[in-house]
Amino acid sequence: MSNSILLTPGPVQLHPEVEKILGLPMIHHRTPQFDEILNSCLKNLKKIFCTTQPVFALTSTGTGGMECLLINTLNKDDQVLAIISGKFGERWATMAESFGGQVLRHNVPWGESVNPKDIESILNKNPEIKIVLCQACETSTATSHPIEELSKIISKTSALFLVDAITALGAYPIMMDEWKIDGLVGGSQKAFMLPTGMSFVSFSEKAWVQIKKNKNTKFYFNIENEYAANKKGETLFSSNVTILRALDFVLKDILKKGLDKHFQEIKNRALYTQRISSDLGLTLYSKSPSTSVTALKLPTTIDGVKFRDQLEKKYSLIVMGGQDHLKGQILRLGHMGYIPTNQLHESTLKLAALLNENGFNFNLEAIENKSKDYIKEIFTCQ
Amino acid sequence: MSNSILLTPGPVQLHPEVEKILGLPMIHHRTPQFDEILNSCLKNLKKIFCTTQPVFALTSTGTGGMECLLINTLNKDDQVLAIISGKFGERWATMAESFGGQVLRHNVPWGESVNPKDIESILNKNPEIKIVLCQACETSTATSHPIEELSKIISKTSALFLVDAITALGAYPIMMDEWKIDGLVGGSQKAFMLPTGMSFVSFSEKAWVQIKKNKNTKFYFNIENEYAANKKGETLFSSNVTILRALDFVLKDILKKGLDKHFQEIKNRALYTQRISSDLGLTLYSKSPSTSVTALKLPTTIDGVKFRDQLEKKYSLIVMGGQDHLKGQILRLGHMGYIPTNQLHESTLKLAALLNENGFNFNLEAIENKSKDYIKEIFTCQ
Repeated sequence: MSNSILLTPGPVQLHPEVEKILGLPMIHHRTPQFDEILNSCLKNLKKIFCTTQPVFALTSTGTGGMECLLINTLNKDDQVLAIISGKFGERWATMAESFGGQVLRHNVPWGESVNPKDIESILNKNPEIKIVLCQACETSTATSHPIEELSKIISKTSALFLVDAITALGAYPIMMDEWKIDGLVGGSQKAFMLPTGMSFVSFSEKAWVQIKKNKNTKFYFNIENEYAANKKGETLFSSNVTILRALDFVLKDILKKGLDKHFQEIKNRALYTQRISSDLGLTLYSKSPSTSVTALKLPTTIDGVKFRDQLEKKYSLIVMGGQDHLKGQILRLGHMGYIPTNQLHESTLKLAALLNENGFNFNLEAIENKSKDYIKEIFTCQ
Repeated sequence: MSNSILLTPGPVQLHPEVEKILGLPMIHHRTPQFDEILNSCLKNLKKIFCTTQPVFALTSTGTGGMECLLINTLNKDDQVLAIISGKFGERWATMAESFGGQVLRHNVPWGESVNPKDIESILNKNPEIKIVLCQACETSTATSHPIEELSKIISKTSALFLVDAITALGAYPIMMDEWKIDGLVGGSQKAFMLPTGMSFVSFSEKAWVQIKKNKNTKFYFNIENEYAANKKGETLFSSNVTILRALDFVLKDILKKGLDKHFQEIKNRALYTQRISSDLGLTLYSKSPSTSVTALKLPTTIDGVKFRDQLEKKYSLIVMGGQDHLKGQILRLGHMGYIPTNQLHESTLKLAALLNENGFNFNLEAIENKSKDYIKEIFTCQ
């Protein structure tokens, strides 16, 4: 499958240089060489998080990072407001319950973003709420939530605002300090363009006050201990040398290029996908589409599970389908990672060809020309 | 540092093929291609664990795996007997306390192995003990504990025997089912010859009875949920594609060669290290030396911290020193990972040369010849 194209919302395609770095001989994590890498990563991560607070690199998937945010701030029986608009919102709410939180579920229809006024009103009526949970981008529906507006409301209360930005951080601006987010988590296999294996978290000053008083039992994800180790230039447990070494390259590469330009590239892929999909009769599922991932509604005549399978087996184009009740109804195309524009173009041709095999009658030459035009327009007009 | 030699007890040197696999293009974890890899890994891990029970592959360091063993079996206020003979025994005891265990610490002098009779007597006097914790190999002192004998004693009681075999599993025989170990954990960066990033755990039937009744709060390391996901051919959270793909190669490679032969190779490195070190006036620190790692006492005239530093900077030989009160007193040389015999030989020459620079007067030619002889004798007499 070496010529396949991976366009999922994580894991993503790796930069050729990252592939090289992942294959380098092992070095020990208690060496000056690694100390420099760790120091550089932790320093540059702050720039992605837009924070002056320490950022931590944990050996876990994104879910482990979500657990870290929660168990360092949540106490048993605390009231938690969970904004749920898809699978990952549901997961975080369940997690909060597992750790003894009294969870108030605010269900938002899948594909829609939360209305900040609803949250304001819930917080006004429930001043006991200690923590609010929300996804920056709900990956299962490719929907972004108004994190800045929510932060403004929540920061006026005593509640902490914990944000799962696993499919957002590094893909579009999330201004932790400026917006007043209290806990933020990203994942290595998303916009950090690395393999699955690490999560990155940070906490606000307001959160640190709660962390110091927190009574939840924890060890692996104990952030006070991790902080103490980081201050000594070490990670708390064995360092994830392979991923951190590649992260160092990715962060330097992104920052050298400029965050704005990096975000624009990802956004351009989303814009391209939206335009060309529309020509293929595929409409946007989300009413608040993220730039990190796009969910497209398939025509009702098409069995989406079979369609995705055919894309993979016959055309070596790997995209994701819908989850839970969206199974078979949508396709999700990720825009993060290393995606040259010629691969975007190729993906379109594959998609169009398979649609034609499924009863449609698109003029493939016309689609090819449109795709070329869009790429030219979108990727060169900055 | 491409010509450096890494002889630490983890992370270890990688097989050239593993380096290649780590650098392969990313694939998605929800694909038939990855399903096959995961299935193969989970099946072959059982052979290393010597168990018919399911083995789980978690995205965490070894400490995360230790936490997984504990939080799935420990209930608040449970009595725990912790066998402590070094830094990692101490860590596990502290962890058990963090999760509400009433920990009885059985301190064994560093460098010595526990006397099973002492444990028998403690268990007889304390029938309330629910869990016994022990390292198979205490990495900080390079000391192996009599896990088989301990298992025989503990399996007659109602207590569960949880074994941290992070520096043992895959390096020498640990027969989970036959010996009746109730919880067992290994780590990717040790005898599995991979980067840091995954831990592998398994539980006995006796442990599963307790797991089902367990009331401890948990989410990321909830093994019942992981088991349910594995039964569907998936991991509970995003799969660690990069490490699992390399693990699949390593396990197949080890099993093709034969576990006995693989264990013998590691043991041979320990035997070689013991013999040549003795010629260099370096004596064994441990009274029960492990075959996975050797701790050598440095002459008292030598500042061990400086010596290790010189080995690294001047000779590009990376070994570990002592921890806590052993700092500056010992060197620890790991025997796991990809270590061609010529590198063992080279390491000896580097060590001898640096000893001479520090006031000793070894005949380097004689050492070179002895080293060659030992390698010939030890590695060819099987």
